[in-house]
Order: sequence, then C-alpha cells, then structure tokens
Amino acid sequence: APLIRLSDLDDAAHAVLDPRAWAYFSGGAADELTLADNRRAWDALRLWPRALRDLRGLSTATTLAGRPLAHPLLLAPVAWHRMAHADGEVGTALAAAAQGAGMILSCQASQPVEAVARALAEPGAGPLWFQLYPLARREDTLALVRRAEDAGCEALVLTVDAPVHGVRDRERRAGFALPPGVGPVHLDGFAPPPPGLEGLLALAPRWDEVAWLAAQTRLPLWLKGVLHPEDAVLAADSGAVAGLIVSNHGGRTLDTAVPTAWALPRMAAALQGRLPLVVDGGIRRGTDVLKALALGASAVAIGRPQVMALAAGGALGVAQMLRLLRDEFTVALALAGCRSPADVHAGLLAEGPGGLPTSTPPAGR
Amino acid sequence: APLIRLSDLDDAAHAVLDPRAWAYFSGGAADELTLADNRRAWDALRLWPRALRDLRGLSTATTLAGRPLAHPLLLAPVAWHRMAHADGEVGTALAAAAQGAGMILSCQASQPVEAVARALAEPGAGPLWFQLYPLARREDTLALVRRAEDAGCEALVLTVDAPVHGVRDRERRAGFALPPGVGPVHLDGFAPPPPGLEGLLALAPRWDEVAWLAAQTRLPLWLKGVLHPEDAVLAADSGAVAGLIVSNHGGRTLDTAVPTAWALPRMAAALQGRLPLVVDGGIRRGTDVLKALALGASAVAIGRPQVMALAAGGALGVAQMLRLLRDEFTVALALAGCRSPADVHAGLLAEGPGGLPTSTPPAGR
Amino acid sequence: APLIRLSDLDDAAHAVLDPRAWAYFSGGAADELTLADNRRAWDALRLWPRALRDLRGLSTATTLAGRPLAHPLLLAPVAWHRMAHADGEVGTALAAAAQGAGMILSCQASQPVEAVARALAEPGAGPLWFQLYPLARREDTLALVRRAEDAGCEALVLTVDAPVHGVRDRERRAGFALPPGVGPVHLDGFAPPPPGLEGLLALAPRWDEVAWLAAQTRLPLWLKGVLHPEDAVLAADSGAVAGLIVSNHGGRTLDTAVPTAWALPRMAAALQGRLPLVVDGGIRRGTDVLKALALGASAVAIGRPQVMALAAGGALGVAQMLRLLRDEFTVALALAGCRSPADVHAGLLAEGPGGLPTSTPPAGR
Amino acid sequence: APLIRLSDLDDAAHAVLDPRAWAYFSGGAADELTLADNRRAWDALRLWPRALRDLRGLSTATTLAGRPLAHPLLLAPVAWHRMAHADGEVGTALAAAAQGAGMILSCQASQPVEAVARALAEPGAGPLWFQLYPLARREDTLALVRRAEDAGCEALVLTVDAPVHGVRDRERRAGFALPPGVGPVHLDGFAPPPPGLEGLLALAPRWDEVAWLAAQTRLPLWLKGVLHPEDAVLAADSGAVAGLIVSNHGGRTLDTAVPTAWALPRMAAALQGRLPLVVDGGIRRGTDVLKALALGASAVAIGRPQVMALAAGGALGVAQMLRLLRDEFTVALALAGCRSPADVHAGLLAEGPGGLPTSTPPAGR
Ligand SMILES: Cc1cc2nc3c(=O)[nH]c(=O)nc-3n(C[C@H](O)[C@H](O)[C@H](O)COP(=O)(O)O)c2cc1C
Ligand SMILES: Cc1cc2nc3c(=O)[nH]c(=O)nc-3n(C[C@H](O)[C@H](O)[C@H](O)COP(=O)(O)O)c2cc1C
Ligand SMILES: Cc1cc2nc3c(=O)[nH]c(=O)nc-3n(C[C@H](O)[C@H](O)[C@H](O)COP(=O)(O)O)c2cc1C
Ligand SMILES: Cc1cc2nc3c(=O)[nH]c(=O)nc-3n(C[C@H](O)[C@H](O)[C@H](O)COP(=O)(O)O)c2cc1C
Repeated sequence: APLIRLSDLDDAAHAVLDPRAWAYFSGGAADELTLADNRRAWDALRLWPRALRDLRGLSTATTLAGRPLAHPLLLAPVAWHRMAHADGEVGTALAAAAQGAGMILSCQASQPVEAVARALAEPGAGPLWFQLYPLARREDTLALVRRAEDAGCEALVLTVDAPVHGVRDRERRAGFALPPGVGPVHLDGFAPPPPGLEGLLALAPRWDEVAWLAAQTRLPLWLKGVLHPEDAVLAADSGAVAGLIVSNHGGRTLDTAVPTAWALPRMAAALQGRLPLVVDGGIRRGTDVLKALALGASAVAIGRPQVMALAAGGALGVAQMLRLLRDEFTVALALAGCRSPADVHAGLLAEGPGGLPTSTPPAGR
Repeated sequence: APLIRLSDLDDAAHAVLDPRAWAYFSGGAADELTLADNRRAWDALRLWPRALRDLRGLSTATTLAGRPLAHPLLLAPVAWHRMAHADGEVGTALAAAAQGAGMILSCQASQPVEAVARALAEPGAGPLWFQLYPLARREDTLALVRRAEDAGCEALVLTVDAPVHGVRDRERRAGFALPPGVGPVHLDGFAPPPPGLEGLLALAPRWDEVAWLAAQTRLPLWLKGVLHPEDAVLAADSGAVAGLIVSNHGGRTLDTAVPTAWALPRMAAALQGRLPLVVDGGIRRGTDVLKALALGASAVAIGRPQVMALAAGGALGVAQMLRLLRDEFTVALALAGCRSPADVHAGLLAEGPGGLPTSTPPAGR
Repeated sequence: APLIRLSDLDDAAHAVLDPRAWAYFSGGAADELTLADNRRAWDALRLWPRALRDLRGLSTATTLAGRPLAHPLLLAPVAWHRMAHADGEVGTALAAAAQGAGMILSCQASQPVEAVARALAEPGAGPLWFQLYPLARREDTLALVRRAEDAGCEALVLTVDAPVHGVRDRERRAGFALPPGVGPVHLDGFAPPPPGLEGLLALAPRWDEVAWLAAQTRLPLWLKGVLHPEDAVLAADSGAVAGLIVSNHGGRTLDTAVPTAWALPRMAAALQGRLPLVVDGGIRRGTDVLKALALGASAVAIGRPQVMALAAGGALGVAQMLRLLRDEFTVALALAGCRSPADVHAGLLAEGPGGLPTSTPPAGR
Repeated sequence: APLIRLSDLDDAAHAVLDPRAWAYFSGGAADELTLADNRRAWDALRLWPRALRDLRGLSTATTLAGRPLAHPLLLAPVAWHRMAHADGEVGTALAAAAQGAGMILSCQASQPVEAVARALAEPGAGPLWFQLYPLARREDTLALVRRAEDAGCEALVLTVDAPVHGVRDRERRAGFALPPGVGPVHLDGFAPPPPGLEGLLALAPRWDEVAWLAAQTRLPLWLKGVLHPEDAVLAADSGAVAGLIVSNHGGRTLDTAVPTAWALPRMAAALQGRLPLVVDGGIRRGTDVLKALALGASAVAIGRPQVMALAAGGALGVAQMLRLLRDEFTVALALAGCRSPADVHAGLLAEGPGGLPTSTPPAGR
C-alpha cells in the first residue's frame, strides 16, 4: 500500500516494534504536553493561499548557510536506528541520499559515521552533519570531533537542551533498556560520566565550552535545542556559532516547554538574520514545512518519522517518507503562490485567532 | 421521512454511495482541518436577535450583480453528479429550477451544459453559470466558452485555487477512480495537459489569462477561489472581473487555509464594494446564510449538500434540500428582525469571544 | 434519594416522559448551540471568593421592582405542565408558594390562571405574573389581560423573541404533537392566527403594540426575550415597559444567538439602571444566580428544571428543586463574602481568560 | 512497581479505598470545575528552557520566611488520614521527615499533634504547622493553640475559605460519613457550633478574629484560602499575618472560583513582597513547582496526593511520592537553567496564548 501520510507510519511502526522500543521512539517527557503542542502549533497556523501567480519553473531547491540543497528537509539526529530496523543508520543514509535530504547523525548512533558517510556519498546528496553531547573528558570530545571531520561531515551540532535526562514516564513505564547488540559505536572506550545527577550536571555544556569546541574544529558549529530568544542573541554574540536548531528535543526534555512553532518567530525576530535557523518538532506535513519557512527557518528537520519509516519499511520506507513530504511541500508551495522556498514569507500566515501568535517573549533575568 | 437538517444528508448518502465515490464527494485535503474549520467558523459566529421589528411582507428575494433572485442560494460547481445518482446534473438543475436557485455547472460535469440549461429554463428560475479550469490550448478554452454562451449561461466562473491537485488523503486511501460511464462530457477531444507537475504548473492560470479570457466573451467573468484580500484588490484593479467567489474549494486544496467565514469580512473590507462577493464552504444552516450576508456576501453557494441530496434522493432530494435551507433562512431573517436580505448588516453579529474576528490580514509581499 | 443537583432532573424526567414530550421539553433550536452556550457561559465565568467578611444575619431576601421576595428565584413561563405530570401548573404553583418563589404563567398553560393563583395565595408567596403572545384580534388579547388581572396577577409579560417558530429539529425528529387532553385552556374560542408564515408574521409584535398593550392595563408590563442592548434602550425610551427579561427562549428560537450571560452585562451597561432586569437560560447552580446578580440582574428565572422536576416528582419535586437551588445560592453568597443579594457586585467576577468578556456590542443599524 | 507519576496514585487509591472515603478525598465542590481548573491552569503555563547555564552545585534548598528547607514542598492540611490508612497522620509525618518536607497538620486530624510532632522530630526535617478553623468558644480556640505550641509547631494556619461547607455533590451522592474509629482527636470536649447555617455563619472568622488570634500566640499566623488580591493587601495591612497560603481549598468550597495559578501572580503583584506566599491546588509535577515559584510563591503545598499515596502505600507511599516530586523538580530546575529555587523568575514563563494571563483583577467594592 502506498504511504498516504507521515502519521500513518506510527501505526505501522507500532505493529512491528518491541513495546519498549516503541515507548522509546514515540514517547516524550512527563504528560507529553509539549509533544502534542509541537504538532498542534503547526496545525493551528492558518495560511492565506494566493491566486493567479506565475508558477512556471517551480522548484523546492534552496540553500542552507550557502550550501545548496534539493529541498529544505533534513533528518534530525535520532539515536539507535538499529533498534528500529537492521538497516540502521546506513539504511537511513541511503534513503536520504536517494531523496537529496541532509542527515544529522546522532553520536548515539548504532552504526559508525564512516559507513553512514559512504552511504551518503552520492552526487546531489545532502550534507552529513554530526551531533554530539559533551563528554566527560575533553580529549574524548576531540577524538570524536576528529572522527567526524575525517569521515567528511560538513558540520558539528552540539545539543544543549538535555543536560539531564527528561522525566520520561512512558519509557519508565515500559521498562526501556537498550536491546542486546545495539550500543553506542562512537562512545566506546570513552570515560563514563561521573556518577549521579551531580556528575551529569558537571558535564552540562556552558558557553565557554561552546567557544572551546568551535576553536578546535574547522567545521561550522551549530547549537541544537535553543528556544529562548535571549539565548539566540547570546549565540550570535559569541561569534562561535554557525547556526541554530530551534528544538525542544521533540518534547522529550522539559514538558510544557513552548512549542517550536511558537518559539521560532521570536527567535527570528531577536536574531534579525544574524544566524540561520533550522527548526524541528512535529513537522509532518508539507504545509508545516511551508509555515516553518514563513516563520523564519531556512530548513526543517524530521525526527520520529524517520525511525518509524525505518521500522516499518527499512531504507525504502525512509525514502518513501521523504518523497511524500517533499511532494506535499511542492503542492503547498504552488497553492501558496510561491515558485521556490525563497518566495515564502510571513505574509502567507494569517494573523489573529488561529493564526500567528503576536506577543513577544518576556525579558529574561 | 422528512429532511430535518442538511447534515443528515451525509449519512443518507454514505449509506448508498460506493465507498470510493463517498471518499471523493465528502473528503478534503490532508487532515481536513480547513474542511472542519469551514463549518466551525460559521458556527462560531454569534448573532444578536432583534425584537419588535415590523416583519410584514418579509421576503428572501434579492439581487446578485443586478440579476433578481428568489433567494440568495446558489449551487456551487461540483463535478460528476452522475457518480452520485443517475439523475445527474440535469436532475440537480430540475431541482434548482423548482426552487428558484441558481446553478454553477462544473466543466467536469457528467452531463452536457445544453441539457442542464434546458432543465433550468423555467420562469422564475435562477441563473446558470459555467465554471472552467484553464485548458492546455487557448482554442479549446474558447470552444468551451462559446458552448457555454450558446447554451445560455449567464456568467463564466474561472476557478483559480486549484493549479495543482490538493493532497487528497481520503481519496487516495479509498483508491478513487472515476467509475465506467462517468466522464468529462465537456472536455472530450481537447488536448490533455502536458505530463507531470511541470505540465500542470505551466497551465496554472495567471492574471494575464484572466484579462485574455474576459476579452473573449460577452459574459461576465467571476473568479472562484480567491481568499486573500490583496488578490481581491488585484481582481478589482484588473477591470476584467465581474465578481468573486470567496472559496477554499471546500477544504479540498490547501489544508489549513483560512476558513471562508474568516476571509470574507477581510475581502469585503479590502474591496469596499468594488466587486460583489459570493461565498461558499460549509454553509449548512439558514443562520449561516444570514451570517454570510452580514459579513458582506451578496449570495452563498452550496457544494456537498447538493450531491449528498442527489445521492440520497435524486432530483427530489436536491429540491427538498434547497427548500429546507430557504425555509431556515426565512426563519433566521425574521428572528433577526430583517424583512429582506437587504436588511441584513454587520450589526447582527456579536463581536469578541465567539464573535466576529477583528484582526486584519497581514500585508503580503 | 435526595436531589443532588438540578441537572440530575434531566435523567429522571427522561426516564418517565414520553419521548415526544421529552423532545419538546428538553430540545432547542437547530444544532442546539445556543442551548449549550447558555450553560457554558455561566460555567465560564470565574469568581473571586472574599475572605473574613462579616456574614452574621446572611439572608437571600431581596426586592424586584420594589416587590419583596424571599430570594431572587422565579419560575419562567413554560407551556403544557400537564404534559409533564398530572399535577400540572397548579402543582408547580403549590411548590412555588411553599418555597417563596415567584411564577410566570405561560398563556399556553394547561391549567387555568385562576386555579394557579389560588395555589399561590399563601402568606410570603412570590408574585404570579402572566405571560402572553400577541393574538390575532386585539379584543382577544384584552380578554386575556382582564382575566389575568382578575386572577390577581401582579404583572404581564409579553414575549417578543418568537414571532415565528424556531427551527426545532429535535421536536420534528420526534414527531412532537400535543397529547390528547392537554391543550391551551386560555386560548379557547379565540381567533386562530391567519394561515402560513405570512399570517404569523402579520401577528409579530411591534413597538406600537407594546405601547397599546401597556395603555390597556394597570399592571406593569415586562418584555421577555430582549437581548440586544439597543432594544433595551428602545424599551426604556418607550415609557411603556416596567422591566426586561433577558432571554433567548432557552435556545429554542434563533440558534447561535448570544448566550444570555453574555448579553446581560451589555444590556445592563446600556440601560444604566433605567429598567430592572431578570435573566433566564441555563441557570442551574447557586453560583449561576450569584453571577447573574453580579452582571446586573435583579432576579433569575428557571425554565426547564421546573418541568423536569415536575415530571420526575410532581409538585414535591418542584419544591425540592427550588429548595436545593436556594440553598446553593446561600452557600455561594457566604463564600463570596456577601450578606445579601444587595451585596453582590461585578467585582466578584474575574476578568480576562475565562472571565467577564469585555468587548462592547456593535452599533446596530 | 515504581511510582511513575503522582496522578497514578489516584487509581491506586481508588482501588483500595471504600467508595465513600474515595468520594471524600477525591471530590470537589459542585461540578468540580475549579478542581479541574486548578490542574489545567498549571498545565497551560508554558516554559522557556534556558541553555548553556552553569548548573554545577544545583540544589533544591530554599528558605520559607527565613526557615531553611531542603526543598519547597509542604504537605497541605488534609483531614482524617486514618480513613486512608492505619498509618494515619503519624505515617505521613514519618514520610515527610524522611524526605525533608514540611507538614501542615489539620485540626481535623485523626491522630494527635504530639505524636505527629514526635514523628517529625528528625534532624533536617521540615517544619510542623498546625491548621485551625474558628471554634464556638474562644477558650477552646486558645486551648488548641496552646496544645499546638506545646507540641512544638512552628506556625499556626487559620483557614478562611470555608465559613460554610461547600456544595459537595460527590460526597452527598456517595453518602459519605466518617467511619467508626476515625474522629477529631483535637476537638473532643469542645463546644459544638451553634445549630444550622446561622450558627455556622456566626462562627465565620473575621478580620478582628485574626487580630485577636495573632495576639494570643508567639507563633507566626498564616491565613489559608486567600485568593483576592485585595484581601492579600488587607492581610498585609493588618500587621497580624505572617504569610498567606493561596488556595481555593482544592476546589472543595466555591465552585468556579479562580484557579490558584491564576490568582497567585495577581496576589504577588498586589503584595509587592510584603508577605511570603505558599500556593496549593493541583500541584502534581515538578514543572508545576517551578511555575509556582516563577509566579511568586516561596513554596507549594500538596493536598490529595499525600492521602492517595497513604492509601496506596502507607508511610512508604507518601515518602515515594515526595521523593518523585522532588526529583522532577530538580530536573525542571536544571532544564530551566536554574541552579536553585532562588534563581527561578517570571521570565521563564512564556506570555500570551497558553502563557501567563496578563489582565489585572477588577477593583472590589
Ligand atoms: C527516539 C529519539 C531519539 C533522539 N535522539 C537524539 C539524539 O541522540 N541527539 C539529539 O540531539 N536529539 C535526539 N532526538 C531529538 C531529535 O533530534 C529531534 O529534535 C526531535 O525528534 C524532533 O521532533 P519530531 O520527532 O517531532 O520530528 C531524539 C528524538 C527521538 C524521538
Ligand atoms: C466533490 C466535489 C467536487 C468539486 N468539483 C469542483 C469543480 O469541478 N470545480 C470547482 O470550481 N469547484 C469544485 N468543487 C468545490 C465547490 O465548488 C465548492 O467550492 C465547495 O464544495 C464548497 O464547500 P461545501 O462543499 O462545504 O459547501 C468541488 C467540491 C466537491 C465537494
Ligand atoms: C418546554 C418549554 C416551553 C416554553 N414555553 C414558553 C412559553 O410558553 N412562553 C415563553 O415566553 N417562554 C417559554 N419558554 C421559554 C422559557 O420561559 C425560558 O425562557 C427558558 O426555558 C429559559 O431557559 P432554561 O430552560 O435553560 O432555564 C419555554 C421553554 C421551554 C423549555
Ligand atoms: C480530603 C481533603 C481534606 C482537606 N481537609 C482540609 C482541612 O482540614 N483543613 C484545611 O485547611 N484544608 C483542607 N483541605 C484542603 C487542602 O489543605 C488543600 O488546600 C488542597 O487539598 C490543595 O489542593 P490539591 O488537593 O489539589 O493539592 C482538604 C483537602 C482535601 C482534598
């Protein structure tokens, strides 16, 4: 059966996954209010279609920080693809290559970055980026950075929204643990974090870490998990950051955190174009992609649908998912009267009830 | 059993229609959020009844662009009536004639405009209009226009909100295809659109097409599917357009497009009376008709209920549907203290929560 | 079993009533949105409790247009009590007398005003008022007025919100008709309305009728069914009206009319105390009564619960219902820090989300 | 099975409690709208996570009116713990001591304050406070105050929001009555309230009572159940009050009273720091605690979860509950970028839709 819509992948994955793996991939923090909000916030935005525009030569092609892309769809970093399907991250990468999508590999990948890089090494393929969390010892972090550089990654992504594990009720209820044979292929042999919460908090990344990390690599450094406009300004002021991924970790860390569709325009307003923005969280429809661009993003990243598609159909499933989303985005562009992503602008969003929220974020302390 | 309310027709049609036909007639784009919004937006408007007004001689009679009508109800263009019932478009037209309703015939009709025109040729009948999409060759378009003119159509309607097919999940899930024996009787022998999306987009109507088309015919030219106030102004400025049908294609093209009840007052405010407005999308109650007039429409058009009524009861079913809606509208007029459609005004709508949304559309680019 | 809350009476009545009688008593117009809104609007108002006030001597006693009442609860006019229970309107009146409640008798009562008046003739009983609709001949109206005067009624109530019958889907679906033995004991022998909608509309009351009626009687004349602030001002300006009952006929006439809790403060603001206000529609809790007073009403009227209580338990059931509501109101007064209805004021209502709507009604035409 | 979230305790308690005890512990007033609102109001607040803050040495320690606390969690006064579990209030106190939580003992406790005080006498334990309602005779009140002082209580709490019993539908439906063997161990031998509502209202506390009570004791006097900002100012002006517990009695007194999360910032704004605030009502998540602090509270109090935990697991259950909530609060602090409760500030809350309500309370009379 053809894939009708991305959310159908949830049922398909649910049917084949071990309940614990399902709990891990699908769940969010606590009452999953932010998880639900992420979706609802895109849905709640209303669009003004435009009529009678010249659509000849319509194309989804765009650029991200100067890098040409066939379309603005990236795969967000998601851990343990082999827990979803034997194809693992390499399968996902093959699909991304076939569909021209960029891929951000998690440092908690279950297959090595070198193999993933090879799978993506196709003409016209999107970029491979490498995501990392701070490690207990700087030398371990450096080793990881070098490995990513050597594999040909085009950027590093430091995730900053998870200094501690979120309150993951669903995982705890399901008794989640990594299955045998799935493990962190990039972290083997590294020093474990110091024990307990104290230890974890000592590792929590800080602005000086960001500066240090940026100084160690020739790759552009992105931060993932920034939501507050003030933190966006701090990132721009730091001079160390190449771009930001507006994310609440798919609702897996702080429950009742603002949805990303709500934070994005406030980030964009605070930054005034000083840094490029990618957004993730609940992107499931071509219209969501259109709205993200209208709110100031240069591209979007897709989390859960990639592992749901992988679980349900392996590499082919991921390719179908990307293809469908891109097709929907093409239709959305045409109906909004835009010939390319660059044509998308805030005027496509309706204001007021059900439209673009208008209040500004409060000043922090 | 007598018909109690228009929405009961859905169940009745569902019971008799082939599931694929049902999916086609009832469905909308993607998650059908705009489909649901269209209804909700009328429901959400609150009315101020007026008391103790003089109601003697109350009548639903009105005019549309100067043309007298027994009431402000039109039938929106809906394709393939013979897929609903053997009576087809001719049956619908007989019902319209009996009830004094105007009818806009789709160019995707399954019965010829000449037969439909004959069915409507009754004293006191409403007007017949002909709806078209741009064709691959101008000479084909011209041939179609001549045929509509010759059949006695009183206006042409160019639909501008569907340059590409919407993301129709429900149809795809149902595996919709036209059944044998139902087909486009007006498009036979014309050049097919160039293949693929590119081809479709090359056909997408543009403002210069509108000017060209208006110049080819002595009939007034309406545009259907305009939602953005700025496009309304462009239409008025073009000098080629006789009126606008405020429509999102019944939620079948761009999902999460603004509901028509929300766009209508903004269109009216932008136009300041320069063009007459008809609105469609979710009109199911006499109070919806009253609200549409209060928001600036001269008349309303009814989409799905006509094919649901046709499926459930043939021509007679359509007549009952029109009769019921007109009766409800009469009651609504009386309870709102209005003696005629001309008496209806914005002051009947309550402002604020649950009332008339007040924010203005953003400036486009 | 003791009565726990007024809304439980619905189930109790549903269990004993003929389905057609149930449809008649419980139903509203069309989709019953106003019916539901009436309740929701009271529920949505939020209260500020006050602490540490002096509550010694707390009492529910109040006055209505100078007439002392044991509490601000009246029974709204509801037709055909004998269809609910053999005790009929006389049973309802006995309960009202026992509980000190006023009663507004419908001209569509199934028992004569004289018998009802006798049942209410108790020391400390609330007032009996007589409600009427305009009749086809003025002499018939006058005869009815004299009869009400002679029976000792203290006021006349002209219902102005039902010039035509509402769109009563539920009644039509149930096939409602008056059962044998229940009929209009006050209208026998009067001229029937002229046939059809035309006839009905010719009878629709107008402002000059109001003036004429007021001139024929020594009783104060109230209007029932006024919602628009402008009509309130017209009533005050007329000089013929003693007070207004803010009502949408319990959601039985114009569906999507504003809920009464929303209209009431706007009426009060427009009137600036020139006329006393009674409100009905969805009053089911002691806190609803408190809110009604806080929004500007001098008293409230109760519609459906009286017939539901009558159906479920005869006269005794009505008495229990009134007793419970009065007890709840006493508790609400105490918790709001008020020693009497006169202490209730707008400051008890919270503003903003879920609070008192603040927008003003639009100017009419 | 480990406890996953506080709300799971409801099911666990429901399974073991007598239905009447369940109705008593779980229920609220009337339609339980305020009960539901209390939860919804915390849920509706949206948080801005902060990134890359220095979290080393993070701690939940704080102070309340100068008294150091291991964390800002208190147990609210809840009557009749022995009806939940044989461990009773002493069991609850042992759990509080083990987890460093303060405890406010109800004067309707089923075990004596002296035994409770002994259970809490641990190094590092939180404070024991004693809650009272006004009694019929001042000498009885004084005797109770002395007993609390002698037992070592650190503060007195006068509950002011329940001069009369709320409209408790759920209790009445269940036929609630105290089971044999459970009773008011602190009120034995005292004069009963004068009979009837009159008697109860004569006992209702007033501002002069507050002054009198404060003058009789060396303990700080808190008022519990203040919601209106004006009453907060009166309390500060009185000079007799040490602090306020912002509470609507868990939705058990005036239904449709404002939720506490809505009243709290208005109270804080009116007080400008003149009195410390504790808030209760619907606190179930670590993020709720964070939000309460952000809105101006120094600490929070937990009502129902303590008796639900007690019913389900005795003293150990209460300890698990407190432990889990504290752990969640720790995670919330870290993800909000706060190193301690003192770091929490209003800037963590998002404004606008789903955020902090901004309108001010109306002036009272
Ligand atoms: C199962 C799962 C694992 C994830 N693992 C990581 C990770 O290792 N590193 C990271 O930065 N984000 C991780 N994320 C967050 C995603 O990168 C992304 O922010 C989020 O999934 C986007 O929301 P969506 O799933 O609604 O599209 C993970 C998300 C999920 C669902
Ligand atoms: C089954 C179906 C077929 C339609 N076919 C056409 C069409 O051929 N041309 C057109 O302009 N609009 C078409 N429309 C849109 C309708 O004209 C109209 O805009 C819409 O149905 C109004 O919404 P409603 O169905 O809620 O009343 C179609 C709608 C439906 C439901
Ligand atoms: C069954 C029924 C019969 C009614 N009959 C009359 C009537 O004869 N005259 C009238 O003025 N209002 C009539 N009303 C309206 C009531 O007086 C009142 O406005 C309404 O019931 C108040 O709303 P509530 O039922 O929610 O309390 C009737 C209402 C009901 C439910
Ligand atoms: C079963 C029960 C008994 C209560 N007994 C008292 C009491 O004796 N004195 C008092 O001041 N508050 C009492 N309260 C109110 C609580 O102190 C507190 O305000 C409320 O429970 C907080 O809301 P929560 O239950 O949602 O946490 C009681 C609450 C409950 C649920």
